[in-house]
Amino acid sequence: MKQLTVDAYVDGVRSADRSVLARAITLVESGHPRHQALAQEVLTRLLPFTGGSRRIGISGVPGVGKSTFIDALGMHLVGEGRRVAVLAIDPSSTISGGSILGDKTRMARLSRETAAYIRPSPSSGTLGGVARKTRETLLLCEAAGFDVVLVETVGVGQSETVVADMVDFYLVLMLAGAGDELQGIKRGILEVADMLAINKADGDNLPRAERARSELRAALHLMRPGNEPVVTTCSALEGQGIAKLWEALEAQVGKRVASGTLEQRRRAQQVGWMWSMVQDGLRAALHANPTVAALVPVLEAEVREGRATPTSAALRVLESFLPTSRA
Amino acid sequence: MKQLTVDAYVDGVRSADRSVLARAITLVESGHPRHQALAQEVLTRLLPFTGGSRRIGISGVPGVGKSTFIDALGMHLVGEGRRVAVLAIDPSSTISGGSILGDKTRMARLSRETAAYIRPSPSSGTLGGVARKTRETLLLCEAAGFDVVLVETVGVGQSETVVADMVDFYLVLMLAGAGDELQGIKRGILEVADMLAINKADGDNLPRAERARSELRAALHLMRPGNEPVVTTCSALEGQGIAKLWEALEAQVGKRVASGTLEQRRRAQQVGWMWSMVQDGLRAALHANPTVAALVPVLEAEVREGRATPTSAALRVLESFLPTSRA
Repeated sequence: MKQLTVDAYVDGVRSADRSVLARAITLVESGHPRHQALAQEVLTRLLPFTGGSRRIGISGVPGVGKSTFIDALGMHLVGEGRRVAVLAIDPSSTISGGSILGDKTRMARLSRETAAYIRPSPSSGTLGGVARKTRETLLLCEAAGFDVVLVETVGVGQSETVVADMVDFYLVLMLAGAGDELQGIKRGILEVADMLAINKADGDNLPRAERARSELRAALHLMRPGNEPVVTTCSALEGQGIAKLWEALEAQVGKRVASGTLEQRRRAQQVGWMWSMVQDGLRAALHANPTVAALVPVLEAEVREGRATPTSAALRVLESFLPTSRA
Repeated sequence: MKQLTVDAYVDGVRSADRSVLARAITLVESGHPRHQALAQEVLTRLLPFTGGSRRIGISGVPGVGKSTFIDALGMHLVGEGRRVAVLAIDPSSTISGGSILGDKTRMARLSRETAAYIRPSPSSGTLGGVARKTRETLLLCEAAGFDVVLVETVGVGQSETVVADMVDFYLVLMLAGAGDELQGIKRGILEVADMLAINKADGDNLPRAERARSELRAALHLMRPGNEPVVTTCSALEGQGIAKLWEALEAQVGKRVASGTLEQRRRAQQVGWMWSMVQDGLRAALHANPTVAALVPVLEAEVREGRATPTSAALRVLESFLPTSRA
């Protein structure tokens, strides 16, 4: 595809031209060094026009009703006159081609709305690379004037943390399971959630969902005293509880805006992204070094089998990679 | 202090000579490159004699009764004919001189036992450096024939994770607080704990401790279904519940030994230590680079204020540090 000029990208994105926005995202996602340099130029020009959206992370295991929920929430927001972008982070998509689909059938109503924009997960790269692409796509969507950006994840691997590091607010969807158990609690998720919603709270399931909610509240009271996230129920299928949920969410985010903590959080996130990319880059350079690559399997075996200390092995790796750094 | 020969260190540690063990630990803790090289030689020679202990992490905020607990547990183990080493990781000790004291008054009974060895936290260095010193001290203690190594932490900062990464089993002490609340739950601690003990379960406090235990069990059932840690109560002051706790702990560790998961975990930990030291070394070299050091404050400000993208800033850091790595 022939590339546009920087000006054409910038103007197209700013005027919310959907085809230019899509091409700008494709540029950001490209692995080609020349595309990457161009993407950084475009993004730098657009930076002054970013920051205007509510950045909301939405997590939930498959089966929790995430697509239906986002469809319902998105339609509610569009109905309020907002423009909504939906992005996704799905680390499994690199291998499988994606369990978060980007197709039109998944969010049937929202995908037909001109005020909505749905983009599937970048489908190649490391988790760090996928995160970088999604963060930059988020900035593009903000520059294009979207009021709300929903970043969804299936919660595979470290993706919760990655999403938590790029959003203002983290919503986790759950189900009340058979018995009194909750389904879809992944390790670490209760620590980062700003709000938990028990979905499918409808019909026969309603009493179970209410019970699950009070148990979850008690658990969070123990785990995060003084910092308990809101726990609510909803039925995305029936559209129940969605408006109330968004109202509660807005109230929370509003407090953070007023207190200045949201701005602080975003600034800290940006500096954090820079350092995580430095770290990724160092790691990549280390493993691309042929001396190191030859040494690593030998050293790992020695350390694993107790023939070398981890410290001596680490020093040998560092000395091969940074020969000038030691006297 | 004049250094011993490698042979003298190795022989002294293996024959459990306390003064040589103390000198070997001091050597491991030294920041001097010559001492570090000598320490690695000694450790490499001792590696075949390591691995024979139960490595137990013990965490709890100040006030939970940690010293009294370790004193009581240590005495119980010594009474069973075991040799016990107590190490500590206290990242705050670098600044404050230490909130985990190494003096004889803290574990009054245990410190008088010849079958026990108590070593305070290394009091200088980064958390990574402190962790390295404690891991290597643990190996020295194993080579000296200690059957149980207790690694305690006050749970400041990331120290739980660091301790979890060097032990076989992680015990967390807690208190039942006023009302029904639990005190001393730190972010992330419920995720890594293998066992939780509510201490000071004595006198008037007993019903509260029992209630806290059942609530904690319910919470953990939600958080870690199928992988719930044991929750127990004890009174270190009165010596109640200590023997039972150790029995339960041994049973758990015994299962891991029998299934081979303990050995797997240790091997993975060793390789993990190697890589975390490589990462620490890379970070140190990066920040020691004068070009990078001059650039970082400028770039961080640009990124924080939204004038540069995190990606472009990261590339500039990497290009200054690894000029040859890019075409």
